[in-house]
Amino acid sequence: CSLTEKLPNASPPNIIIMLMDDMGWGDLGVFGQPSKETPNLDAMAAQGMLLPNFYTANPLCSPSRAALLTGRLPVRNGFYTTNGHAKNAYTPQEIVGGISKDEILLPQMLKKKGYVSKIVGKWHLGHRPQYLPLKNGFDEWFGAPNCHFGPYNGSIRPNIPVYNNSEMLGRYYEEFTINRKTGESNLTQIYLMEGLDFILRQTKDRRPFFLYWAPDATHAPVYASKRFLGKSQRGRYGDAVMELDYSVGQILSWLRTFSIENNTFVFFTSDNGAALMSGPKGGGSNGPFLCGKQTTFEGGMREPAIAWWPGHIKEGSVNFQLANVMDLFTTSLALAGINPPDDRILDGLDLTPVLLNRPHTLQSRPIFYYRGNELMAVRLGQYKAHYWTWTNSWEELKNGINFCPGQEVPDVTTHEQKEHTQQPIIFHLGQDPGEKFPISVLTKEYQNVLSMISPVVEQYKKTMVPGIPQLNMCDMAVMNWAPAGCEKLGKCLKAPKSEPWKCDWPH
Amino acid sequence: CSLTEKLPNASPPNIIIMLMDDMGWGDLGVFGQPSKETPNLDAMAAQGMLLPNFYTANPLCSPSRAALLTGRLPVRNGFYTTNGHAKNAYTPQEIVGGISKDEILLPQMLKKKGYVSKIVGKWHLGHRPQYLPLKNGFDEWFGAPNCHFGPYNGSIRPNIPVYNNSEMLGRYYEEFTINRKTGESNLTQIYLMEGLDFILRQTKDRRPFFLYWAPDATHAPVYASKRFLGKSQRGRYGDAVMELDYSVGQILSWLRTFSIENNTFVFFTSDNGAALMSGPKGGGSNGPFLCGKQTTFEGGMREPAIAWWPGHIKEGSVNFQLANVMDLFTTSLALAGINPPDDRILDGLDLTPVLLNRPHTLQSRPIFYYRGNELMAVRLGQYKAHYWTWTNSWEELKNGINFCPGQEVPDVTTHEQKEHTQQPIIFHLGQDPGEKFPISVLTKEYQNVLSMISPVVEQYKKTMVPGIPQLNMCDMAVMNWAPAGCEKLGKCLKAPKSEPWKCDWPH
Ligand SMILES: [Ca+2]
Ligand SMILES: [Ca+2]
Repeated sequence: CSLTEKLPNASPPNIIIMLMDDMGWGDLGVFGQPSKETPNLDAMAAQGMLLPNFYTANPLCSPSRAALLTGRLPVRNGFYTTNGHAKNAYTPQEIVGGISKDEILLPQMLKKKGYVSKIVGKWHLGHRPQYLPLKNGFDEWFGAPNCHFGPYNGSIRPNIPVYNNSEMLGRYYEEFTINRKTGESNLTQIYLMEGLDFILRQTKDRRPFFLYWAPDATHAPVYASKRFLGKSQRGRYGDAVMELDYSVGQILSWLRTFSIENNTFVFFTSDNGAALMSGPKGGGSNGPFLCGKQTTFEGGMREPAIAWWPGHIKEGSVNFQLANVMDLFTTSLALAGINPPDDRILDGLDLTPVLLNRPHTLQSRPIFYYRGNELMAVRLGQYKAHYWTWTNSWEELKNGINFCPGQEVPDVTTHEQKEHTQQPIIFHLGQDPGEKFPISVLTKEYQNVLSMISPVVEQYKKTMVPGIPQLNMCDMAVMNWAPAGCEKLGKCLKAPKSEPWKCDWPH
Repeated sequence: CSLTEKLPNASPPNIIIMLMDDMGWGDLGVFGQPSKETPNLDAMAAQGMLLPNFYTANPLCSPSRAALLTGRLPVRNGFYTTNGHAKNAYTPQEIVGGISKDEILLPQMLKKKGYVSKIVGKWHLGHRPQYLPLKNGFDEWFGAPNCHFGPYNGSIRPNIPVYNNSEMLGRYYEEFTINRKTGESNLTQIYLMEGLDFILRQTKDRRPFFLYWAPDATHAPVYASKRFLGKSQRGRYGDAVMELDYSVGQILSWLRTFSIENNTFVFFTSDNGAALMSGPKGGGSNGPFLCGKQTTFEGGMREPAIAWWPGHIKEGSVNFQLANVMDLFTTSLALAGINPPDDRILDGLDLTPVLLNRPHTLQSRPIFYYRGNELMAVRLGQYKAHYWTWTNSWEELKNGINFCPGQEVPDVTTHEQKEHTQQPIIFHLGQDPGEKFPISVLTKEYQNVLSMISPVVEQYKKTMVPGIPQLNMCDMAVMNWAPAGCEKLGKCLKAPKSEPWKCDWPH
């Protein structure tokens, strides 16, 4: 790796990836949130680099997180479904599958240089024993395998367990309370403490560490601790953002306390766009972008992104490089001085030349927008071509589920899966970030763009070999009935008989 | 004035108001513009105070500027029309009227403490001799009385003159070129030089100064100088923003060069929301807000705002105080230690307690949204009540004029003037900055808000005495045919016979 040769210090930097859950691009002050709830993140941007063109690999939690940790598109690493066309799949309690043993995760790679790795918060790559973090390269874990939906009564569904390493400590709504009425929960504070403690221990032991800090307070049902409830100008969601922002500030401040800020690379982002169907009171903001979570419009996949590494990344810089979560895999390896796996295709690129302001040739890299197993759109430079458009079905819409409330764009936010492969809908995202004004097919601009993008897409499709889909089967028997450690706590529940079925992914 | 008593230094601060033209809230990086064209403004915010709840007094140039310089609503200072209900009026070339001699303008007041005042750029308070800046308190002027529409051939309409003080120096598209095809013009650079030169001279002479810096590069037809053309990611509009941002940076840097930054109060804002009807290539961004210029939705009247005064205003602060351009009149007087006029109602409040972080009672002040002579909406706290809704007529819409392209909200962005005085449409702007989700009239929240806002509005309406409307009459004979100084230049044109008519304001 060329980078390590150039690094004056041989000791590889610590790596912290802060991954928010359903937080939108427009939820950060520095990205235009009028309620300005993020002084610490805004300061982080002022001390680091802002990446306004940063993307997720899929507009939903599980595939996005699988992509981050493998450096590979969900369609390659198996985090998708073939049960339906262009349907998003994830890992609810009833999912049978999880991250394939054939995948190599970032913490597994980082071990080669002696990194100690911890995940704090939501895992979401499968909750059955073989899929859990400590079986997949992490040395420590504090958090939960699934979302914090609930409460459940334990008969039809168990509540989600909270793990400390490989054993459960209790369950959401039981030992780890979330008050659905008031929105009060101190989980973010717990996740903060877990992160700080891990940093402290590794710093003492002088071991390089990887902290994957993945709190989920901005995922419905949104929560915040008492100190933050009612503090923002936009309700509970803003309160949750304020608490996460506070926690980010505490973590960065902690690094300075131990004088390891110059040796710790920190990256802040989110797993998918804000969920707009929660309505004005429950969900976040995608700023000027169209629609939200679940969709392949910008609101579903453009993510807030800040890179921070004092003394290495130029403070107050903005870089328009097109980048995505999978690059974090490759970039982390480069920072650690580890060669990436050479037995598989990686979709992530090494962003270190961008971050460290060195010459590079990454300008022409495309961004691929997937929904389930379908390549819905491609961005190249300022242009984005939609080959398929879909928000959700008319039936869902009639039932009040709307991924683009108040934002319908005729023939763009379609309620049937609409194919445009022969004549993609093309937007100039610089001039039209909201994807409201398709470029007329009659213009020279359209023809030029098409002739630029088409060969890239054709070449890509020709070489794309999908992995084995891991998210096709569901079974009530696989739920979190009796996670490891439940005996000690007297919290084991009886699983029903196994009756697997093909999961039905509605959108 | 209480402020001056507390100021350690008796010499009043210099005042610079930077007023942009049609620049939107969402055009600043710090307010979420994805193209991030404003490193200097973002730095200005980091060194000063950001005011996310700052408003104009009217969604159109002339009334907004009249309000700023008089501290009074257009309906009081006469910058409105009674030719039609809720129609916006301004000062095109054919306008007969201008700022009334009964109004007192900020530079007239500032003279009391020896301030020297200059306006650089667009005036727009009437172009007939008696209405020009040097007849209304300014000591110097470099710029134009109207917008830079054109080019005209001089027979039906003359091109707009550019004045140096009280004499014209030439005309737009003639001596002061704007290339309509390429968008190239060095006007912003000229306006920058004029500003810097003025600051230099007053600093040398040790005189307090007021600089009203009002460039118009972001008003259609948008222009930028060669150095900036093609530099932004969103076309010519972004190029213009980059050049204005560069100029702001140069002015602030100039203040530091002369070590007068601690004695110079600088305020940056815009006269109205971005004009969306120019389409994706020509206009700016109003961020998350609804519609744009000409409308009383947030996109028409919420303005970017930064206050900067090193050593006095806390750096990197954000203040959610509801404020508006008329406050700049009253605040400037407070800073200068001058008592405001006591023979008239002022709508502007003294913001110095907000800016200087002192105790105050400004929290409950309302914001009034006018369109022409009609109070369309009122904001109190986080709530906004619409008493009238209108974008523009169906007829205009059919002709392609759209103030809310891609943003129609049913029953909100109405194409007829719709009255809701008995049951206003109410939004919570914290939770719903985009005014997309009216609060249901059946809720307790709605009733609570109504009972809070109604008495405020009733009291306000009871005491409101409109001024004499100045923008009712038009006449081709009053155009800029033969501005002062035209003889010297041989650029006098022959005016047609006077045939006044009642101006027709379409929206
Ligand atoms: Ca998520
Ligand atoms: Ca304007």
